[in-house]
Amino acid sequence: MGQFNLEEHSHRRYNPLTGEWVQVSPHRSKRPWQGQIEKVVQEVRAKYDPNCYLCPGNTRANGEENPAYSDTYSFTNDFAALRADIPIGKFQEDDLFIAKSERGICKVICFSPRHDLTIPEMDIAAITKVVELWVSEYRALGKRDYINHVQIFENKGAIMGCSNPHPHGQIWAQESIPVEPRKKSRQFLEYFQRHNRSLLSDYLERELQKQERILLQNEHFVVLIPFWAIWPFEAMILSKRHITSLLELNDAEKQAFADAYKKLTVMYDNLFQTSFAYSAGIHQAPTDGKLHPEWHLHMSFYPPLLRSATVKKFMVGYEMLANPQRDITAEQAAKMLRELPLKHYKMT
Amino acid sequence: MGQFNLEEHSHRRYNPLTGEWVQVSPHRSKRPWQGQIEKVVQEVRAKYDPNCYLCPGNTRANGEENPAYSDTYSFTNDFAALRADIPIGKFQEDDLFIAKSERGICKVICFSPRHDLTIPEMDIAAITKVVELWVSEYRALGKRDYINHVQIFENKGAIMGCSNPHPHGQIWAQESIPVEPRKKSRQFLEYFQRHNRSLLSDYLERELQKQERILLQNEHFVVLIPFWAIWPFEAMILSKRHITSLLELNDAEKQAFADAYKKLTVMYDNLFQTSFAYSAGIHQAPTDGKLHPEWHLHMSFYPPLLRSATVKKFMVGYEMLANPQRDITAEQAAKMLRELPLKHYKMT
Ligand SMILES: O=P(O)(O)O[C@H]1O[C@H](CO)[C@@H](O)[C@H](O)[C@H]1O
Ligand SMILES: O=P(O)(O)O[C@H]1O[C@H](CO)[C@@H](O)[C@H](O)[C@H]1O
Repeated sequence: MGQFNLEEHSHRRYNPLTGEWVQVSPHRSKRPWQGQIEKVVQEVRAKYDPNCYLCPGNTRANGEENPAYSDTYSFTNDFAALRADIPIGKFQEDDLFIAKSERGICKVICFSPRHDLTIPEMDIAAITKVVELWVSEYRALGKRDYINHVQIFENKGAIMGCSNPHPHGQIWAQESIPVEPRKKSRQFLEYFQRHNRSLLSDYLERELQKQERILLQNEHFVVLIPFWAIWPFEAMILSKRHITSLLELNDAEKQAFADAYKKLTVMYDNLFQTSFAYSAGIHQAPTDGKLHPEWHLHMSFYPPLLRSATVKKFMVGYEMLANPQRDITAEQAAKMLRELPLKHYKMT
Repeated sequence: MGQFNLEEHSHRRYNPLTGEWVQVSPHRSKRPWQGQIEKVVQEVRAKYDPNCYLCPGNTRANGEENPAYSDTYSFTNDFAALRADIPIGKFQEDDLFIAKSERGICKVICFSPRHDLTIPEMDIAAITKVVELWVSEYRALGKRDYINHVQIFENKGAIMGCSNPHPHGQIWAQESIPVEPRKKSRQFLEYFQRHNRSLLSDYLERELQKQERILLQNEHFVVLIPFWAIWPFEAMILSKRHITSLLELNDAEKQAFADAYKKLTVMYDNLFQTSFAYSAGIHQAPTDGKLHPEWHLHMSFYPPLLRSATVKKFMVGYEMLANPQRDITAEQAAKMLRELPLKHYKMT
């Protein structure tokens, strides 16, 4: 049978950031696909859409009018899942029925006044404005005494539940530390207490030596496919310097973050020559008023496509009930992305 | 502002089975939906499809021919994610790069020779054969010394990544205990050590008193929406008797399991008058050769639809990066399902 080999044999990889495992089935991408095919929307969008509730000057569902903004714009979500003005309370019966009220704020952040653009099509200066907006929102929301976690994220593409193609992201800020960042908090802390170093600094150092999973880098950021990635083309933007939150970014780093964000999403679009859908978000220190030297800021990208612009990976059945599972290895995915041109396919 | 109230205010509920929390936003289902609409496939299927690789007598991708089976049939997946014949090995560098080989067996289980049926359209006797097949597969797979977990599941519907409408499920049996059952193992054990009782027996007792989230019951099984459900119409089939695995089911219980399975899926189909997609699976004791008195067999259903036959809940962005989140409460969902007739809409 030969020797055990990560490129050929089924295995599990450990994710030191969450403490959980991913199941990898390298040979499985050979299976033919007869299942659901996604629609590809190759629409040409107007720069301004009178019916879009995010375009400058338009009126939203609640009757408010967007200003004539010229770079970014943020506002409180008209259909927020979390609200600040709810009564505080707790419900508990034994240790089987436990619930507690959760206060929070949900915001929408428009990346550009242009209805027709996406991050990979925007220029670095414009994307830097997005990074600056993240910084100011994280600061302002995090300052409120009842906000202990600020989740900045972007859903891109209809198959990711995004209901409006106008380039935008969201922020859900809340009292509790949610499930996913809580796992990372615990793992970061444990590592920091043991090594007095950031887990991701040590990880990055090794990845830069290996070069197997690196997609690109600039002076301040590296983009890579983590060893323990779950989604076929999952990627991570990682700051070279050990910084715990957006608040520590200097101007050069803000621009470098924007540069990494653009380049990764250009690679993504070029992979299947389609506007590549994903959910992406920033994980960073909680805003609970304490210092968190163990945390290391990073941005994760979870794109669903697997084989082509129309065939996605379904995280269902086994994955929902048992364990995340992937069909190609992180190294195979990195190789495919790394070989792509850094110029957007629409520009060539 | 009045008093904190689970039917009105954002809150988090604790899942004692996993130790994790779900975010509930009761008011959020009011938000209008402008996003992706799923295709409804109202096809009329033939009883036999010459191109289906699961129909009796047909030849599969690997050249093997299915027998002329008359109730259920199982075989090893031709494109298995897990295989028995791989070299054993481990890869480790520091505590950052850890991988280990994973042996396993993936099987496909056909529920019926009839290509056109689904569980809610089959009769109890035929579904009982499916339960019997689960029992024998769990027994046979679990007996192998390198199989410590047997995950039985069903992906139903194209939007759940199911690539063939012929009624079938799958079994992935493997060396390690996967992430999700491992959480439950830990929680069951902790509860059992503290109370010397099954967590789910105690839970069920309280739910039967409350009646708020019960969908239906028969002599041996209860179907309910758990207090901590994540998916809009998530449900659980729970054995009244504290049994740890399928091996303990007596004949009456096998039939009652089939009855509960059918009735729940009929409710599901009736909800939006469509063949209701879901992933479902059985969680039960590991097959690691030890006794597991802490475990309590149950079957979980995770259906994606939210508002109608065409609008699903997207678990994206916030949910992927931060925390599972639901838009209607478990109680609202239970009320909607409970009020539906128990006769399949196609039969009326
Ligand atoms: O095995 P199938 O039906 O081809 O594939 C389906 O179920 C598997 C197990 O849940 C998933 O890994 C796949 O993503 C899904 O498409
Ligand atoms: O807020 P939106 O864009 O309407 O909704 C989208 O993102 C939310 C946050 O990730 C999800 O809860 C919704 O399921 C999804 O459709």
